[in-house]
Amino acid sequence: MKPKSKWWGWGNPDTTYHLEEHPLFLSYLKTILELPDKAIVTRPNIQDIKIREIRLSGRDIDGLYSILTPEGVDHSDEARITNAYGKSYKDLIRIRLKQFDAVPDAVVFPRSESEVRDVLHWAADNKIEVIPRGGGTSVVGGVETTDAHRATIVIDMHRMNRVLAVDTLSLVADVEPGIYGPALENSLQKHGVTLSHYPESFEYSTLGGWIAARSAGQQSTLYGKIEDMVESLTIATPDGVIKTVNVPAAANGPELTRLLIGSEGIFGIITQARIKLRPVPAKKYYTGYLFKSFNEGIECCRDILQRGLTPAAIRLSDADETNFAFSLIEPAKSAVKNIIHKTGFAWMQSRGYVEGKRAFLLLGLEGTASRVSYERRTMRSIIRQYDGIHVGRGSGKQWYRQRFINPYRRDVLLDYGLMVDTLETATEWSNVPYLHHEVLRAINSSFGSLNIKGAAFAHLSHLYTAGSSIYYIILASPHRGKELEEWNVIKNAACDTILRNGGTISHHHGVGLDHRRWLKKEIGDAGIRLLKDIKTSIDPNSVLNPGKIIE
Amino acid sequence: MKPKSKWWGWGNPDTTYHLEEHPLFLSYLKTILELPDKAIVTRPNIQDIKIREIRLSGRDIDGLYSILTPEGVDHSDEARITNAYGKSYKDLIRIRLKQFDAVPDAVVFPRSESEVRDVLHWAADNKIEVIPRGGGTSVVGGVETTDAHRATIVIDMHRMNRVLAVDTLSLVADVEPGIYGPALENSLQKHGVTLSHYPESFEYSTLGGWIAARSAGQQSTLYGKIEDMVESLTIATPDGVIKTVNVPAAANGPELTRLLIGSEGIFGIITQARIKLRPVPAKKYYTGYLFKSFNEGIECCRDILQRGLTPAAIRLSDADETNFAFSLIEPAKSAVKNIIHKTGFAWMQSRGYVEGKRAFLLLGLEGTASRVSYERRTMRSIIRQYDGIHVGRGSGKQWYRQRFINPYRRDVLLDYGLMVDTLETATEWSNVPYLHHEVLRAINSSFGSLNIKGAAFAHLSHLYTAGSSIYYIILASPHRGKELEEWNVIKNAACDTILRNGGTISHHHGVGLDHRRWLKKEIGDAGIRLLKDIKTSIDPNSVLNPGKIIE
Repeated sequence: MKPKSKWWGWGNPDTTYHLEEHPLFLSYLKTILELPDKAIVTRPNIQDIKIREIRLSGRDIDGLYSILTPEGVDHSDEARITNAYGKSYKDLIRIRLKQFDAVPDAVVFPRSESEVRDVLHWAADNKIEVIPRGGGTSVVGGVETTDAHRATIVIDMHRMNRVLAVDTLSLVADVEPGIYGPALENSLQKHGVTLSHYPESFEYSTLGGWIAARSAGQQSTLYGKIEDMVESLTIATPDGVIKTVNVPAAANGPELTRLLIGSEGIFGIITQARIKLRPVPAKKYYTGYLFKSFNEGIECCRDILQRGLTPAAIRLSDADETNFAFSLIEPAKSAVKNIIHKTGFAWMQSRGYVEGKRAFLLLGLEGTASRVSYERRTMRSIIRQYDGIHVGRGSGKQWYRQRFINPYRRDVLLDYGLMVDTLETATEWSNVPYLHHEVLRAINSSFGSLNIKGAAFAHLSHLYTAGSSIYYIILASPHRGKELEEWNVIKNAACDTILRNGGTISHHHGVGLDHRRWLKKEIGDAGIRLLKDIKTSIDPNSVLNPGKIIE
Repeated sequence: MKPKSKWWGWGNPDTTYHLEEHPLFLSYLKTILELPDKAIVTRPNIQDIKIREIRLSGRDIDGLYSILTPEGVDHSDEARITNAYGKSYKDLIRIRLKQFDAVPDAVVFPRSESEVRDVLHWAADNKIEVIPRGGGTSVVGGVETTDAHRATIVIDMHRMNRVLAVDTLSLVADVEPGIYGPALENSLQKHGVTLSHYPESFEYSTLGGWIAARSAGQQSTLYGKIEDMVESLTIATPDGVIKTVNVPAAANGPELTRLLIGSEGIFGIITQARIKLRPVPAKKYYTGYLFKSFNEGIECCRDILQRGLTPAAIRLSDADETNFAFSLIEPAKSAVKNIIHKTGFAWMQSRGYVEGKRAFLLLGLEGTASRVSYERRTMRSIIRQYDGIHVGRGSGKQWYRQRFINPYRRDVLLDYGLMVDTLETATEWSNVPYLHHEVLRAINSSFGSLNIKGAAFAHLSHLYTAGSSIYYIILASPHRGKELEEWNVIKNAACDTILRNGGTISHHHGVGLDHRRWLKKEIGDAGIRLLKDIKTSIDPNSVLNPGKIIE
């Protein structure tokens, strides 16, 4: 089942975030941005969107019908509009500006590997651009039409959504790629097992999408990125099917599974994955700590990881993000608790955990009771060595409860004409403080050159013995009518800075169209040539998601 | 520095294993094999080996001299003979039989990436087969001349053996590939860090070889296989250099580093690696347990792994290997201890740990003191649930002390005309007991059809949540003069059985020449085609280790 979701924004149509109900957050926003008194950007009506004529001929449509039956093909305006974009800020702005220059000509819904193969074969023969789509939540232009060929179809995978087999002895399962996060976890947890891959998009993204884009869940520090969770893959190509091996580890030549993971649809379409599972954790413990400075927090996190400890979630906010996070704290229902809260903050301030310097650490432990209790004890004593103080489990619980809420908030801020974007990278520990600082400086200096108000801050959230990801949040008040142009300036400044200073263009969002030119710098001409040669050998007509990752 | 090593056998020329000094082992061998009273196969003299004329022209040699200086090129008979083979049983037998039909024409010793590049360029232009060689300990024909071109050179990497940089903050180091295990660890441990990759070949193999063949160390359950330890790679190809990215994790398209790891020299020659390190463990704790049966041991090991615990080494012997292992126990120096030992065995026997059924578990824990103590406590209580009993730390200590000794033993057994081979696979837990049994049955049935005495047994040694490797040891008394032929029958029976029953052709030895035809079954035509296309794009003249992995 495909979850109902706003075509112009994020998530459940019945869920909205009401800014007015969050006075603390509202006043925080007013201090850092130009915030109008009320929403100024209207949400679009699908009836108002104009799109181009369909470019598929009657014969093309018949061809698709004969593979998929008419029920498996939708070339309505609605389907073409709602499948034109992903969920990046750039996408949502173009939707609100009613910019639908390039839209696909049809959306198809295969039910089996053989239908996928037949569609790809047909597309290769007829030189039709094919865009695979899971939940369509790409934030890097990964599902966008490029008009590389005479027409474009989107392959929406949501009907291939079965959990085919669960082996509770080997802790592996065979799953079709079109399954959404909640359906997958529900189905697995009935067997007492879990994948535990929870990206922020979890409720509206699919297993296939996670694998194609090398996603990371919020608990990746323990469970690994998606590439660590996949034992084998089956992918359909115009030429046939590649199936990798169902073994836990091997020395059988180069690791082909890893070559297919992260290929974002350019080598083929994932039709099945064997995923590695864990028992459902008996215990989850989420809590919060505060450091006197971001740098002390970084040192502490590094120490935790390098001692061989693996918290499920470990997320360290810099000083500005800590402020942002504190503005989102929900007032307690009891007045007494609120007073305790206030007193607590005053005490912290007096003890040297000063606003504008202090850094919040979210720590989440998962596993058997004995493991969680061992880790809790051990990490507490490490954190103390870095002057970290416990701020109570409430902060951890709130984070856990609200861990999928940010994209809803974004929609509301967009109503107010604000720019809201995120970007992320990863680098080694010795470069984390420097890169963190340089990227923020680049973003802030583009606010200056654009003459707009804005704020940017960051957190570390997927940690390794060798380094960490850095995740940036950008809020700004762009000039009306110049949103895309100004976003571009900021994005370019940030990405150029990342690449100049030893970061990767993405830790878990992928490459798509938006990051392509930086990937070229990152992996060099030889790397790009290698990818191109592989692509050409699999897909000589280049119909598979053309233009993504490589030109 | 290249460690001194026997050209016709294993390791340090001054170290030998004297069978006569191990009466327990000797009598064990007599019960299972035809063991002559004394050594019957002489060790070869290099002067007695006849090889073909050198196939490189004077012009070729001048070409190599101009790249490497004469000092970097050796086309002496000795160099050509000692670089003809790896260290498999098949290799050692051919050496003893003086079968040197195909030998390389020269061995070259580059000192830098640019020299490697120039040699590859020269080889591609002149259509010369190039075989990269680290320690030359391949047991799958990975370093063997195939005569694919008019002449063959071996590139011995041992002069590129520097640790270029150690970053103790990020726990990474840049290392050249020709460094041998002990030199690498010595150099790292001076900085308080370690790679902790200890394959049985550790003392005589190199970092580049480990990476090229997807090696696993004896402590891989904690530290990972070599593919988990490499952050980035530089490889030289005839066409230029491919350099992957120095970041701890990324979503930058398909993972090119993993495509190069395990490529066994067919895509290029590794010239540098950035490896991920750990602090030197404060504590190492090795000990032994006994289960009433192999199957109970398997269940226990699975449980340990699936609860999220990661012992450094966890190695479970089946009943026959347990017998073998017990025959290797060194008598204690004190008579009292020996009596205690004997009493202990009798007690075990009476308690249901019966010879021929019982299974020995070697358990090694490494890390901080607090981690080791937590794991020790937790695992002990799990092991108890499966009726495992502690047999004392002596067994763990002996294993640790002797962990690199087996290949020395093999040389002596070869003197006695015995066949000694090992092979290994990996499979998921639900298939472990079945595959374990079927492969042994196939091997035993080939002993029958060949009408020879032999024994085969196995252990699990590299464990994952999803499954385990299974490592087989084969001992047999082949007919003299038919060693290779009979080995072939046994090897084929075992490998066919592995592939028919869901195992991989190798967990950590690689593919080389010997496993090529099973790889084809394992990854299918589509997989082979993909590898071939990648190879062709990088190495259109196919001069790079031709014939390895794919035909």
